[in-house]
Amino acid sequence: MNGARALIQTLVDGGVEVCFANPGTSEMHVVAALDAVPRMRGVLTLFEGVATGAADGYARMADRPAATLLHLGPGLGNGLANLHNARRAGTPVVNIVGDHATFHKRYDAPLDSDLDAIAGTVSGWVRRCASSAEIGQDVAAAIAAATGPPGRVATLILPADVSWADAAADAVGAPPGAVPAARRLRDTPGTGAVDTAAKALGSGEPCLVLIGGEATRERGLHAAARIAAATGARLLSETFPTRMERGAGLPPVARLGYLADLAVHQLTGIRHLILAGAKRPVTFFGYPDKPSDLVPDGCQVHEVAPRDGAATAALEALADLVASDVRAPDATGSRPALPTGTLTADSAAAVVGALLPEGAIVVDEAITSGTGLAAATAGAPRHDWLTLTGGAIGYGLPAATGAALACPDRPVWCLQADGSAMYTISALWTQAREGLDVTTVLYQNSAYAILRLELTRVGAAAGGERARALFDLGDPRLDFVQIAGGMGVPAVRAGAAEELAAALHRAMAEPGPHLIEAVVPALVT
Amino acid sequence: MNGARALIQTLVDGGVEVCFANPGTSEMHVVAALDAVPRMRGVLTLFEGVATGAADGYARMADRPAATLLHLGPGLGNGLANLHNARRAGTPVVNIVGDHATFHKRYDAPLDSDLDAIAGTVSGWVRRCASSAEIGQDVAAAIAAATGPPGRVATLILPADVSWADAAADAVGAPPGAVPAARRLRDTPGTGAVDTAAKALGSGEPCLVLIGGEATRERGLHAAARIAAATGARLLSETFPTRMERGAGLPPVARLGYLADLAVHQLTGIRHLILAGAKRPVTFFGYPDKPSDLVPDGCQVHEVAPRDGAATAALEALADLVASDVRAPDATGSRPALPTGTLTADSAAAVVGALLPEGAIVVDEAITSGTGLAAATAGAPRHDWLTLTGGAIGYGLPAATGAALACPDRPVWCLQADGSAMYTISALWTQAREGLDVTTVLYQNSAYAILRLELTRVGAAAGGERARALFDLGDPRLDFVQIAGGMGVPAVRAGAAEELAAALHRAMAEPGPHLIEAVVPALVT
Repeated sequence: MNGARALIQTLVDGGVEVCFANPGTSEMHVVAALDAVPRMRGVLTLFEGVATGAADGYARMADRPAATLLHLGPGLGNGLANLHNARRAGTPVVNIVGDHATFHKRYDAPLDSDLDAIAGTVSGWVRRCASSAEIGQDVAAAIAAATGPPGRVATLILPADVSWADAAADAVGAPPGAVPAARRLRDTPGTGAVDTAAKALGSGEPCLVLIGGEATRERGLHAAARIAAATGARLLSETFPTRMERGAGLPPVARLGYLADLAVHQLTGIRHLILAGAKRPVTFFGYPDKPSDLVPDGCQVHEVAPRDGAATAALEALADLVASDVRAPDATGSRPALPTGTLTADSAAAVVGALLPEGAIVVDEAITSGTGLAAATAGAPRHDWLTLTGGAIGYGLPAATGAALACPDRPVWCLQADGSAMYTISALWTQAREGLDVTTVLYQNSAYAILRLELTRVGAAAGGERARALFDLGDPRLDFVQIAGGMGVPAVRAGAAEELAAALHRAMAEPGPHLIEAVVPALVT
Repeated sequence: MNGARALIQTLVDGGVEVCFANPGTSEMHVVAALDAVPRMRGVLTLFEGVATGAADGYARMADRPAATLLHLGPGLGNGLANLHNARRAGTPVVNIVGDHATFHKRYDAPLDSDLDAIAGTVSGWVRRCASSAEIGQDVAAAIAAATGPPGRVATLILPADVSWADAAADAVGAPPGAVPAARRLRDTPGTGAVDTAAKALGSGEPCLVLIGGEATRERGLHAAARIAAATGARLLSETFPTRMERGAGLPPVARLGYLADLAVHQLTGIRHLILAGAKRPVTFFGYPDKPSDLVPDGCQVHEVAPRDGAATAALEALADLVASDVRAPDATGSRPALPTGTLTADSAAAVVGALLPEGAIVVDEAITSGTGLAAATAGAPRHDWLTLTGGAIGYGLPAATGAALACPDRPVWCLQADGSAMYTISALWTQAREGLDVTTVLYQNSAYAILRLELTRVGAAAGGERARALFDLGDPRLDFVQIAGGMGVPAVRAGAAEELAAALHRAMAEPGPHLIEAVVPALVT
């Protein structure tokens, strides 16, 4: 046995059974070890941002981490944006980055760089593996660090010679405790904070409960909805939940708006803001002459559980205090009618709402084209909704890839904006290679429409022609039917609502990935 | 005037007239300023790695930097791999990275990260712009730092509110000295080192002159070739030169091999290694039981100019000492005959050698498919050859994009491997949008063939099926004709040498970008 095999064996023993890989020379022994440990599934991606985004999507749905396998500093750099999203999501990721052999580091060879510094910017835990004898315990520590709580990116830097050196059989690490695989629900709510929040809810003053983190899943939603039903408090989730369970049979919870003006409106008049797994709300960007802090003047903030804390338990404790006999109404099954005619973002949303299948996983990177989606799908059969937690675009196609690997029996719908898609477009190839049941609705509006909006919001001049040209994706027009076809994913174009519906029906009827280019007008022109 | 306009005005006053941009909300004022300063050409890319690779390719050919415009930490992360290549190339890049407004930083908003730490890993100079009054001097300092010598990545972090704040007219920075635009040839050779090298060359013992950096251009090549002709010293260039001038009328200089076995063979028996702009040679990776240092035992190393030093002047001084009356033979014009029949990497190289036009810029990321290219093009009309200096793949298509913008009157041929192409494939769209005269020969061998080789070289087991599957790009087969077409670049497939030749003729006859998918067997199976 060598270090690489001890690494893989410890990973699978610890419940990490998928590795999204972009290997290079320094990771060859790890690749070779895949044949010795068949329980590890190596999934090839064509770009590291696909590997890291897939690891994020996988863990959000599997509730246990996947591993990545990246190649030195530049490979980690390529994966950084989606690791950033994973960090903001609180997703567990075991991030394995190969490095030059220890004896080779001193030569400053062309691929050498300050890998440790890059890793530090996205990782909650970083370790450089020093010897093949310690590799098992290092991997076990990485799994423990990744799975938390809170979930985080744990980066293990693996020098090539550590992976190829002999390792005794006992170099395989013990799984990290009793919870190697399942992500733990945190079960220790803050003590006094819950009582304080209960008093606020009983004060008769306007209250709002803002939930996030683990609380956007079934138990947290039910508890929060009971609190709202019993006390009249408003209820919202954070703007970009990691994984929101929703649809018929679950309490409907709206999200805090991305646009500051909407968020301000949603928070207007409240005197008590109760945070359960959500951070104190701030605007996504800073804007001239607008406050970044969204909490209204005079509003008291009560945190019953921090962003990565025991939000579910805290909400249940709070519900027991203020809503012991209350049941909250769940969303009833109700879908929009199938629209007809020329496709728009709104009619596309209605088609999605009308057809979203039971148990679907929705990966949402639709940006401006997605504004109608939440309302249109609120009464769809129960599903999960994953969002762009860190704001680093290019997460949708990779996250859908990972989610489909985590849940092979569930349909994955990736609702994807065109501009963002191009950052990690090769995820389509991995979907084809692995035969994943992912249906991508690619909103083709030929623009970075969000930037047209932001240009005005930041108070820049309305934008001359040269500025506006930098938001225009229409010259030449990206043809996603050809691009997807070139990567082995069958694709069609839909310019009418009926065409989108028909294409979705076909995609559902056939196994494997599909892409539908949904041509829609830009929301902002 | 605001800070953003002072930024752009200072850039153009300092000779930086192209900006490769992937802007987001925090850079909107910089985008808006493009309309006020028409001398700045904003070039939109669909991914930051394209922007940074294009800036590298641009500066290698223009001998002055381009700017980038990137969006916060994740945007910089996406651009990191090609900035790494630029760092290794000694390329000047003015790397502008927008950040949150200063007043917004404290809120740890979703897109916030340790941008400064990421920047530090690739930059020879980093500054965070503190106020709009100082923006001009900061930009001037960045240009000065980038243009060196040595050339480097100079990163200016620009908070959004610094760009939108008012700036007095005198906030525009003075251009940095008398050499704002042209990259300087360094003209101060080491003193004693040249004499020592001359003695070694006169010793009668086997000598080798290894050139790199600026010395792979005309003046350095001529001086080095005179030294070799007069003394019988061997002459090589570093493995991955930034920009090598070559072809008919220039002295032919081979490159040190990438494979350690070849490099060891090239250096066998030498007693004196004279370094002029090249680093002491080491293997690209560390391998089990092989030395990393390629200098033979007992060989003395004489550095007449460091990697970023006055290599041309040092070689000329040395040539004046040991070869004052000698002229070295230049390569004579001689092209391979046009081959026929089923295409192979070798016959594709012959086609390239037979047809490469006068003044071409060759961007070489052909990896294993390119092994025959150097010999096949040695007698082609004079051209420039750019290589993968830092080993971070995904440089070819972006660098070709930048080189074409730097030299609009010269044909650019991008010789590109398939696996590497997928890292930054959207560069094709920018080529189409800008109407650039880039001809991409896309070597389709459906494999990471280099990794098949490396798996054996690092002593890993020959590779079982599961390991080998991670090097296989053939299932599904990437269809680059469709992918390029989807991005607006006309493309054809060539499976025979005649087809490749015909397609190259058509590409040369028509303006704008073209892609030819050259189907070749993998060199390593």
